[in-house]
Amino acid sequence: MKILISNDDGINSRGIYELTKELSKIGKVTVVAPLTEQSAIGHAITMKTPLRVTKSLHNGDFFGYAVSGTPADCIKMGIKNILKERPDIVVSGINHGSNTAVSILYSGTVSAAREAAIMDIPAIAISITNHNPEHFSPAAKIASRLVKLVLANGIRKGTLLNVNVPDLPSDKLMGVKITKQGKSKWDDSYVERIDTFGEKYYWLTGNLEEVDTNMELDQFAVKKNFISITPVHFDVTDYDSFDKMKEWNLDSIELNKINKILPD
Amino acid sequence: MKILISNDDGINSRGIYELTKELSKIGKVTVVAPLTEQSAIGHAITMKTPLRVTKSLHNGDFFGYAVSGTPADCIKMGIKNILKERPDIVVSGINHGSNTAVSILYSGTVSAAREAAIMDIPAIAISITNHNPEHFSPAAKIASRLVKLVLANGIRKGTLLNVNVPDLPSDKLMGVKITKQGKSKWDDSYVERIDTFGEKYYWLTGNLEEVDTNMELDQFAVKKNFISITPVHFDVTDYDSFDKMKEWNLDSIELNKINKILPD
Repeated sequence: MKILISNDDGINSRGIYELTKELSKIGKVTVVAPLTEQSAIGHAITMKTPLRVTKSLHNGDFFGYAVSGTPADCIKMGIKNILKERPDIVVSGINHGSNTAVSILYSGTVSAAREAAIMDIPAIAISITNHNPEHFSPAAKIASRLVKLVLANGIRKGTLLNVNVPDLPSDKLMGVKITKQGKSKWDDSYVERIDTFGEKYYWLTGNLEEVDTNMELDQFAVKKNFISITPVHFDVTDYDSFDKMKEWNLDSIELNKINKILPD
Repeated sequence: MKILISNDDGINSRGIYELTKELSKIGKVTVVAPLTEQSAIGHAITMKTPLRVTKSLHNGDFFGYAVSGTPADCIKMGIKNILKERPDIVVSGINHGSNTAVSILYSGTVSAAREAAIMDIPAIAISITNHNPEHFSPAAKIASRLVKLVLANGIRKGTLLNVNVPDLPSDKLMGVKITKQGKSKWDDSYVERIDTFGEKYYWLTGNLEEVDTNMELDQFAVKKNFISITPVHFDVTDYDSFDKMKEWNLDSIELNKINKILPD
């Protein structure tokens, strides 16, 4: 089994090391991860600057390839340029911090898995719900178990699993829930400060407004100490609105009619 | 009508100027846009560095606020820090280049509109299908028409309209199609080059593999010279897989059972 591992916390983070250690027991692992931290980078890709690839060591031994770009860059680079064969599965993480609800959209961890899903490769994003996690073992083990389950059961092309694990020892975990993306959102604001030259600058701050109260929603499941597994795809079409917008009769604007609406 | 305008090509691009000129005819416009080009930045937000806000001029007159961050940062900064009242609608663009099919995921233009949708503000992303557009007038006019239609007809909370306009004079446009996100993908590769110090670097290149052959898909509609309007939302749950994964019986892993699966 060929496993490609990436993350967004950077190749030197503890999470990617623990994940690699665990998944090396069940397959041939290649690590291609960002050289520097890329949290909240979303699905950014690097187009206007060149990328560098360097070999990264752990305790003096080769650990993986560090790419001077984003998590999505790492997946493209790993599959198109580094690996000789396509991986059977891509696993991104273990992220330090939750990727539930709206944070799925900002997450570099999820975007690495999504980039694999775009290439029709099964993928898992895995996160621990704490920016300074203490308990890596349950997340590493559920990742290993899910790799086997995904390859055994199959998964729809274009779908990835977004997994969030409470930062608890395994005997405190309540179980596993298959979930949907929650509705919780960040209530953001900017703190205004003055630099040493007397100029203003702004720093983002915010709290997650937890509105989810249903065990089928990711943020509520992890809050109740369950491991949350959300199937995520990259088709962002709002089909309900697609049907509804037919009533707007925009389709009927054809040919010469458009010139009346849009005169140059 | 209060309109917030942003983009990803940067505040000095032609597209945002043409959009602002047109929408100023129908509402009170505020421009909050990236200081520098942010193409393919996805839904990145700036957390670990401070942001600066400067006033930007056009022909010596105040044009808008330039933010030293991403398109999503601009929407947060505009709504939380610059505008006194919430805008009625956010319009992002006019982007120089298509944002159809999988490019929706990479697009900074779309992410600005998506950030507004997350805040329950109606939003439109608008792009011309050419990196060096010649015909801004149809895109500016359809944006203006859609602003009025969205506010008159209403739109689901959390939904934005992703609009792509062929780079043609209006008498060459075939009409308007309500579309779904297409299945076309980028076939990427990296060009390896050697820098002046003898070190390797890699530059992304790629072609869009056009697989869409249905007028209900965005990429095919613009190829056939139609204006494409796709309703997009930010719920990325794959509901089909959600139902299917119940058969995996992961939910049944409860309490003490989890300790057998995940011994520390």
